[in-house]
Amino acid sequence: MEIKVGVSNRHIHLCKEDLEKLFGNNYELVKLKDLTQPGQFACNEVVTIKTEKNEIEKVRVVGPVRNYTQVEISKTDAYILGINPPIRDSGDLKNSSGITVIGPKGSIDLKEGCIIPNRHIHVTKEDIKKYNLDESKLYDVIIKGEKGGVISKVKLKVDDNYLFELHIDTDDANAHLVKNGDILELKN
Amino acid sequence: MEIKVGVSNRHIHLCKEDLEKLFGNNYELVKLKDLTQPGQFACNEVVTIKTEKNEIEKVRVVGPVRNYTQVEISKTDAYILGINPPIRDSGDLKNSSGITVIGPKGSIDLKEGCIIPNRHIHVTKEDIKKYNLDESKLYDVIIKGEKGGVISKVKLKVDDNYLFELHIDTDDANAHLVKNGDILELKN
Repeated sequence: MEIKVGVSNRHIHLCKEDLEKLFGNNYELVKLKDLTQPGQFACNEVVTIKTEKNEIEKVRVVGPVRNYTQVEISKTDAYILGINPPIRDSGDLKNSSGITVIGPKGSIDLKEGCIIPNRHIHVTKEDIKKYNLDESKLYDVIIKGEKGGVISKVKLKVDDNYLFELHIDTDDANAHLVKNGDILELKN
Repeated sequence: MEIKVGVSNRHIHLCKEDLEKLFGNNYELVKLKDLTQPGQFACNEVVTIKTEKNEIEKVRVVGPVRNYTQVEISKTDAYILGINPPIRDSGDLKNSSGITVIGPKGSIDLKEGCIIPNRHIHVTKEDIKKYNLDESKLYDVIIKGEKGGVISKVKLKVDDNYLFELHIDTDDANAHLVKNGDILELKN
């Protein structure tokens, strides 16, 4: 079956407290554009993420504010920064990598919060029924083309507000020459 | 069957003429360390590669000199540089991307020469017999682990001086959390 892909570049989610430390008291995020998942949006705001080894500028903030701060990067970014973040679901931050985040009005030293995001598929309960999927299963996604292959161990992430979509990081996308919005084959 | 992997970071091969333009007349490459494939070596020398959009510094020269100059980058690098190089075998440079190469003594504007290297396996004729491989076939390589999957359409590259080894780029490696020297499964 076919599935649309969303490619996630490195980005950061902020809790209200950290947003204010980075951008100032009572600061409100400014929407740049809506993302595919309902309610999520890319913001005008960017930050610098920094480690002892190196830093990466212009890391996009994704809104709205959450109740945790989370930095999502690729393995390629992790090498640049000299850190070894775990592969995690959103919000599962225990013992993930520490990182410094720098904004225009201040900086925060996260003891943990930097992860490489797990490949996942956003689905509703209705999608699960409709496509005969299994929430407990890990899926393979098949990619054609000159650098094709298979992306394995893709989890389902279920919420009735979700739009049916595969989320992968830039390493997965670039390895297989996949672009945002491409249609791939989900093996069921 | 098992196969050892060599991960190729971005690098450049130089012909004698271009080596001299970049590093000076009668310049000779200085070996930093031997690579796995017999006769190939990483050099002390690095160059900057540059496009209208951006540049990447410290691109390693791989020796010895060849009869053509070739820049090998990943798709991730290609996005940074704003170019769209084809996926190619070494030496197949017709209509590949143009790029500027800057050395300490001069620079060259390549009209073509920048590629994303094809995934390939170095084999000898003896390996082909021993492992019952087929030179005309494209192979799948299976990767375990949290971001596992399959790397497809892997070509065989046959030469009796070769050491049996899979070569992939940093995008393939990082997408699947593969490191240089890892052992992967070649599906035969």
